[in-house]
Amino acid sequence: MASPGSGFWSFGSEDGSGDPENPGTARAWCQVAQKFTGGIGNKLCALLYGDSEKPAESGGSVAPRATTRKVACTCDQKPCSCPKADINYAFLHATDLLPACDGERPTLAFLQDVMNILLQYVVKSFDRSTKVIDFHYPNELLQEYNWELADQPQNLEEILTHCQTTLKYAIKTGHPRYFNQLSTGLDMVGLAADWLTSTANTNMFTYEIAPVFVLLEYVTLKKMREIIGWPGGSGDGIFSPGGAISNMYAMLIARYKMFPEVKEKGMAAVPRLIAFTSEHSHFSLKKGAAALGIGTDSVILIKCDERGKMIPSDLERRILEVKQKGFVPFLVSATAGTTVYGAFDPLLAVADICKKYKIWMHVDAAWGGGLLMSRKHKWKLSGVERANSVTWNPHKMMGVPLQCSALLVREEGLMQSCNQMHASYLFQQDKHYDLSYDTGDKALQCGRHVDVFKLWLMWRAKGTTGFEAHIDKCLELAEYLYNIIKNREGYEMVFDGKPQHTNVCFWFVPPSLRVLEDNEERMSRLSKVAPVIKARMMEYGTTMVSYQPLGDKVNFFRMVISNPAATHQDIDFLIEEIERLGQDL
Amino acid sequence: MASPGSGFWSFGSEDGSGDPENPGTARAWCQVAQKFTGGIGNKLCALLYGDSEKPAESGGSVAPRATTRKVACTCDQKPCSCPKADINYAFLHATDLLPACDGERPTLAFLQDVMNILLQYVVKSFDRSTKVIDFHYPNELLQEYNWELADQPQNLEEILTHCQTTLKYAIKTGHPRYFNQLSTGLDMVGLAADWLTSTANTNMFTYEIAPVFVLLEYVTLKKMREIIGWPGGSGDGIFSPGGAISNMYAMLIARYKMFPEVKEKGMAAVPRLIAFTSEHSHFSLKKGAAALGIGTDSVILIKCDERGKMIPSDLERRILEVKQKGFVPFLVSATAGTTVYGAFDPLLAVADICKKYKIWMHVDAAWGGGLLMSRKHKWKLSGVERANSVTWNPHKMMGVPLQCSALLVREEGLMQSCNQMHASYLFQQDKHYDLSYDTGDKALQCGRHVDVFKLWLMWRAKGTTGFEAHIDKCLELAEYLYNIIKNREGYEMVFDGKPQHTNVCFWFVPPSLRVLEDNEERMSRLSKVAPVIKARMMEYGTTMVSYQPLGDKVNFFRMVISNPAATHQDIDFLIEEIERLGQDL
Repeated sequence: MASPGSGFWSFGSEDGSGDPENPGTARAWCQVAQKFTGGIGNKLCALLYGDSEKPAESGGSVAPRATTRKVACTCDQKPCSCPKADINYAFLHATDLLPACDGERPTLAFLQDVMNILLQYVVKSFDRSTKVIDFHYPNELLQEYNWELADQPQNLEEILTHCQTTLKYAIKTGHPRYFNQLSTGLDMVGLAADWLTSTANTNMFTYEIAPVFVLLEYVTLKKMREIIGWPGGSGDGIFSPGGAISNMYAMLIARYKMFPEVKEKGMAAVPRLIAFTSEHSHFSLKKGAAALGIGTDSVILIKCDERGKMIPSDLERRILEVKQKGFVPFLVSATAGTTVYGAFDPLLAVADICKKYKIWMHVDAAWGGGLLMSRKHKWKLSGVERANSVTWNPHKMMGVPLQCSALLVREEGLMQSCNQMHASYLFQQDKHYDLSYDTGDKALQCGRHVDVFKLWLMWRAKGTTGFEAHIDKCLELAEYLYNIIKNREGYEMVFDGKPQHTNVCFWFVPPSLRVLEDNEERMSRLSKVAPVIKARMMEYGTTMVSYQPLGDKVNFFRMVISNPAATHQDIDFLIEEIERLGQDL
Repeated sequence: MASPGSGFWSFGSEDGSGDPENPGTARAWCQVAQKFTGGIGNKLCALLYGDSEKPAESGGSVAPRATTRKVACTCDQKPCSCPKADINYAFLHATDLLPACDGERPTLAFLQDVMNILLQYVVKSFDRSTKVIDFHYPNELLQEYNWELADQPQNLEEILTHCQTTLKYAIKTGHPRYFNQLSTGLDMVGLAADWLTSTANTNMFTYEIAPVFVLLEYVTLKKMREIIGWPGGSGDGIFSPGGAISNMYAMLIARYKMFPEVKEKGMAAVPRLIAFTSEHSHFSLKKGAAALGIGTDSVILIKCDERGKMIPSDLERRILEVKQKGFVPFLVSATAGTTVYGAFDPLLAVADICKKYKIWMHVDAAWGGGLLMSRKHKWKLSGVERANSVTWNPHKMMGVPLQCSALLVREEGLMQSCNQMHASYLFQQDKHYDLSYDTGDKALQCGRHVDVFKLWLMWRAKGTTGFEAHIDKCLELAEYLYNIIKNREGYEMVFDGKPQHTNVCFWFVPPSLRVLEDNEERMSRLSKVAPVIKARMMEYGTTMVSYQPLGDKVNFFRMVISNPAATHQDIDFLIEEIERLGQDL
């Protein structure tokens, strides 16, 4: 049996390895906890483990391995009277938890212990002295731990260890120096809301089983439509499992609007349909076209200017070309915030063209939609109010936990008629409440995850002004980065001028390349720089930022800032880290 | 300021209304807590609220309204030394939480308070003396509370109240008497895993940002394929946002396998394709066909026998008919566990036909797949090993929290070539790890929610044998129900014989109808019985069970049992409740 002081708090450091700067999760947590003047950390420690239980001292001996760890009561005296006196996870299984008879006590203890593990992780996520990632190669990670599934159950001690281990190898997506994706950050209210969503464990298809969530979806989508600028917030919409699906919905609805017979008859009954989007747009437009039976050849990529914005004259030219061939232009998808450059297509010009040729205008504002919350930046989406549909992912720039993507549609009722199949086992027509709240038949999905609550609760907690402040700050940080590197030795900007979104695209040119002429060899060597620096970042675990080639441009860094935890110092750190890791290349 | 004893614990009863049988969440929680001999409830109460804080006594006075409630420290003496001495949620906002400077302490307190609310809800969910639902009509619920979104932030006290209110009106999907959907129950390990998933807040597209989850998906899908019976668990697969999308994937991949040019050229380049599924199959097959540009007219519904099983001879007849017209049969979707009857199509016979005519065989085992975990019941899916693809939703019969749906594909690599678009900003080819773990390009989605962890952790906690025990128990309960009502006065079975799955379909015939002849008037009156009883169930909040018409059969109850909390007594209760609520009809 473990001695007092090496009990629950040995979690995460059971093998004595881990982050070298930070000897064990338990200690990190306790160091944080000890900072609290009121002793809240000790309180958390003491809870459920007996008041005699104290956190392991910093610098103490290596904790025993998980197999010998005793998670629950660790009192020395037996019999003891502490609240977990007879809770020993090594002898408990899932079958001892609720709904088991007498399951409340172990359930509350177990869930509280899971929560303690999560709270430790949350605190560590924001601690700059911890790694963003404890990277292991796939084959290493597969060998390092037994992940296999077996016939026999494991005890709850092992289950708690799995939780710890899973988080040990996780990316801290809330870490102030995690910049790798458009979705970064960990919002505390959003997290709380997502926990609640999991606990409510229901489904969006009918009001009957998700009354509050259905109403909140109604309220939230209406508000989003108001912000887009549709009169009175009228229209329709849905939360879908991500921007790619939202864009596919737009394409589906646009096609149905023009040729409703396609629902029954398929593409055989309609002429060849053509969609237009920019060469910098998201690949989901092509994925959608492939899936919907339109075909990727029928997605025409419109040229962009040097900043990555669609060129309207090229759009019009290609529309005319297509019409001349007898094909039918049915959708233009303009992008508000492209994935790599963060460019905003000129929506007003695109709207004029769509109007002229009677084409459905979709705006993929998955990434840029958040800027609508900012009085300072929303002009970049001028014209979005003329769109027929808009994709807007609050899980990106607005920092809502994954997943939260909305498709907004200007015309009400279209989604329903496009997708409905009247399943009589779900959408009974003789229910006792207003059936317009059974929204499930609008979707391609049957069951649909509750994605709205975290956005709604965050909105209540931050207000529109809170989102605005977050967005303004991220854009300011991007400008700060741009201003530092635009004239700094060793940096080349991928495109000129201040970024419109938080995307800052640049090459880091190591000293050895700075002297070379601008020829093919230099390009070839430059293309290898970002991947090596990125690999080193991950191995050190200090920060993460993305890179990619684009068109004729070799691998460059794409910095994006949506993380509310990031500060000027983190931007400075990123620059220093790139230089440190790339100096010898 | 609230006096001691009416502080935090007044949550959920702030307006003095609510469940009449159960005067307030706080008291219910405390009653549960007090049952613990070790005083764990008091410990939970005391944590963070000062040791002087005690839960409200049962039968105490009505708690003050939310607006006067003080959530944090409620000590009498000022200044006090309790850990939350200076935490007053009424003065705190989201901006005071992490990543705010000095945000750790309010963050831990806030998240712990949210957790306490969730733990209360969890305990109540399993308490038969609480309501399954506190039903309100949509317009009532919209008026009863202010759900609107505003410019200005709300304080954390209000945010905690919103959490309470949201749960107050939620359906307790884990309640032992909730039988309304195929997905019921609340698994404690699954819930813990879902909380962890929210906390990790990442995305499945690359190994880079979801190393453990990507490996767990690999391990878990392989195990599921082994259980299906594919040699060595070989093949492919993905977790998708629900069974409807999984079925759509199957259709997409089947089409691509036969006509890979459809990806670029669209449906215009291929002959007319026809899919076959039974008339009892799920509506998602038609939704998928509509979306994919195949058209619902090209989904042929095969006749079923009186038990709801596809008739193979009718399938073959329709295939020949279609071929004669020059159309191309490309997919047969057999159902293993239909939505209403719980019927299993004869998979071996269907497999023979698919082989004979070289048609992709899909098995929609969204509902029935769980039976593969049971040595006693898996014979019902004999032949599933011959399928080309299988939909299997662990969030249904296996009790995994929503959402968790897998599509399994026998041929490896097909999903990737069907859906990939090689987005260079995600799937860089010069990464430093094995790129086969970047699985995102298999999916239609770009970002993809982590759905695997809860299934994996539950599997570790229960073992395959634990799932087996759960499934065997649910099927035994269904048989128990069937045996009670098959000869009971006032009941008519919709189909004869023991149910194959847990679906028990029946009419309750109120006394006034029992004397009527079997004519149109009786049918018309009978059709109104189930909706009225269901509405009354919801208004009383005592239980929930679904009903629907099907074909020429008027509204009947469809009882399904996937809830691990349900017992024989709950089945007895359901019968008594139907009779109580339907006696006067």
